Amino acid sequence: MPINQEALVEPGRVLAALKASARVEPESGIIQIFNYGRDREGIIPLWVGQGDLPTPKFIYDAAVKSLEDGETFYTYQRGLPPLRQALAEYHEGLYGKPFDAENFFVTGSGMQAMQTAIQAVAGEGDKIILPSPAWPNYPAPLRLAGVRPVEVPMQFANRAWSLDLDRLFDAVTDKTRAICINTPSNPLGWVMKADQILAIRDFCRARGIWIVADEVYARFYFGPGADTGTLPPSFHDVCDPEEQFLMVNTFSKNWAMTGWRVGWLQAPRAMGQVVENLIQYNTSGTAAFMQRACITALEQGDELLAQQVAQARAGRDIVCSALKDLPGVHFAEPDGAFYLFLSVDGAGDAVNFAQRMIDDIAVGVAPGTAFGPGGEDFMRLCFARSASSLQEAMDRLTGWLKTR
Amino acid sequence: MPINQEALVEPGRVLAALKASARVEPESGIIQIFNYGRDREGIIPLWVGQGDLPTPKFIYDAAVKSLEDGETFYTYQRGLPPLRQALAEYHEGLYGKPFDAENFFVTGSGMQAMQTAIQAVAGEGDKIILPSPAWPNYPAPLRLAGVRPVEVPMQFANRAWSLDLDRLFDAVTDKTRAICINTPSNPLGWVMKADQILAIRDFCRARGIWIVADEVYARFYFGPGADTGTLPPSFHDVCDPEEQFLMVNTFSKNWAMTGWRVGWLQAPRAMGQVVENLIQYNTSGTAAFMQRACITALEQGDELLAQQVAQARAGRDIVCSALKDLPGVHFAEPDGAFYLFLSVDGAGDAVNFAQRMIDDIAVGVAPGTAFGPGGEDFMRLCFARSASSLQEAMDRLTGWLKTR
Repeated sequence: MPINQEALVEPGRVLAALKASARVEPESGIIQIFNYGRDREGIIPLWVGQGDLPTPKFIYDAAVKSLEDGETFYTYQRGLPPLRQALAEYHEGLYGKPFDAENFFVTGSGMQAMQTAIQAVAGEGDKIILPSPAWPNYPAPLRLAGVRPVEVPMQFANRAWSLDLDRLFDAVTDKTRAICINTPSNPLGWVMKADQILAIRDFCRARGIWIVADEVYARFYFGPGADTGTLPPSFHDVCDPEEQFLMVNTFSKNWAMTGWRVGWLQAPRAMGQVVENLIQYNTSGTAAFMQRACITALEQGDELLAQQVAQARAGRDIVCSALKDLPGVHFAEPDGAFYLFLSVDGAGDAVNFAQRMIDDIAVGVAPGTAFGPGGEDFMRLCFARSASSLQEAMDRLTGWLKTR
Repeated sequence: MPINQEALVEPGRVLAALKASARVEPESGIIQIFNYGRDREGIIPLWVGQGDLPTPKFIYDAAVKSLEDGETFYTYQRGLPPLRQALAEYHEGLYGKPFDAENFFVTGSGMQAMQTAIQAVAGEGDKIILPSPAWPNYPAPLRLAGVRPVEVPMQFANRAWSLDLDRLFDAVTDKTRAICINTPSNPLGWVMKADQILAIRDFCRARGIWIVADEVYARFYFGPGADTGTLPPSFHDVCDPEEQFLMVNTFSKNWAMTGWRVGWLQAPRAMGQVVENLIQYNTSGTAAFMQRACITALEQGDELLAQQVAQARAGRDIVCSALKDLPGVHFAEPDGAFYLFLSVDGAGDAVNFAQRMIDDIAVGVAPGTAFGPGGEDFMRLCFARSASSLQEAMDRLTGWLKTR
């Protein structure tokens, strides 16, 4: 039977031929709104997690020098040895204990570090537990890999988010390969307490399941002791680098490098070859000249980072002050990260609400529906931006909320 | 029962807790030899597919300018619109027919383009057919994704490689989601003829399965008509961009950009959102400043590319002349790509042979075992290098082979 040429190129035929999990996965709700409003004139973009500072010259100059030096060939799958060493030293400085360069693997973004962690520990039919609301880039790649994300809703009450550990542990079955914890949390700004971190560690040890921790926002901390330099409680405090413990991180947020797409994975040395293979078969490594810039960021970026944190702290004050006394507006003051997750009484559908904000006042926020169960009634806004831009956004938003 | 702290960090315990397919996947045989000999003094590295020319200044200057312009933020998941447009125009110039920017997706390497293609069409329990020997980065990521690579061995006889299409088609079952063809072939240098391309297209159309084509080496062609600018036969010649057809490519080889890790995927427009999602959940896009350099490569890189091809052609002549009359040395003269795939009578284990070449004469080649069924008795050497370096390598190699 001859083939109908027109039928071959039917979009429906092409889509039907895709892997089901790839076909049905919806667009990220963050990207959806980003694409909706990207070109809107005068937009103040608080929808994605990045500031308004381009990467400073002292960082990108290291990449330029590397390009001039001809570092444009294939490089180490695990990352440049001096960058891995710089990562170990950075962690030693922060956590006051030894770290080994062999535990660090450079990845093409924090996202790729998470993908690598997933691909190493879980496959078709497995489950990974995560508290929700959560960054959509946790559950989506799990579903695409045939892994079931088990989202355990957190509770919002009395202007605070809380996680019921019994509920988290009750979700674990013999199919569970990992518990994935993001602290400080995107989108909640919630910071896990030390006793919960310890309890999760002990539970995972007893059950032989993996801890996958994402502490990308660890430097953006506004909770107890933050003003004297205290870090938020960390899985680094209680986990052994050689146990079933994977830590995901990125250069994006600390050093104004979101567009670079470079991150790192900390993993037991025993799985070095497995991580190397996964990197090999994903992107085959990260450009050496970009890694040179990352070394500079780690070694000379403290002042920049302090400025970034100070700006986020000021931004937090601006948005919290502007919104805290507005009737019908609810949120927990964030102890970390740089997001405010707020609900507005009577807002209705979150995507529609976010689109109206773009249309009416050119302020871009991400709809809470993007963040899974428990997020439906919320909006996420990023406050890691200059005070003037945030103040303008708050003026527009509060005015709009009052006249709705 | 208390947990034994030492047992927690046993490498065996950690490895046992990994996903089985990740744990058992061996190291790439190419990377293995690369790591074995990487720091050997005086090494002439013919093991990986790259030349010895660093990325030229006119290309990387575009990245530097972009960095100076502050293009360091998140960007389009599908790629910068002007790069997608430049890709369409590049293909129009080559293939003499219209191409649409919406069919092109920028990826973090050709490898990631392949990963994206796989993740879009196949999952646990599915099969993908590919001729063998093949680049190991085809079957390995399939296995890691739970997809079974079905490797159909090609035949080497009378100094030529050939593919039996009946055998290829006989391997197709109702679990088969795609046929994956790399032409010109890495590692064989073999170029698929137009009649086989057409037969595969018709077969895939009739069976409703995907064509995944990798024509990364299309510009490196030495077969009939090459001296007058003819391109090798291509799936572009006979496939409709909107049918079940995916094409993988990279900036690496043509424009001396191996270390950049930027490639592209051509896919039906109907699956644009699916491709965007897969990019989002792998690396969330490619640095905009790198994409600017890629635009320059496409628009101003013709002369560079012509030099690269001329160098490879000269390199091909050097290695073929040096080896063709050596007793016990067998190979097909490559019609494309920039590899010689040769066997040596009595070489024994290929990995051991490649290691001895490094130890004895500091010439690095990739063992044929890395390339799957049919490659066991071969070595792959890359001839995309300066004539002097290749001539030196051939002097060492022929001398060594004679005295073995």
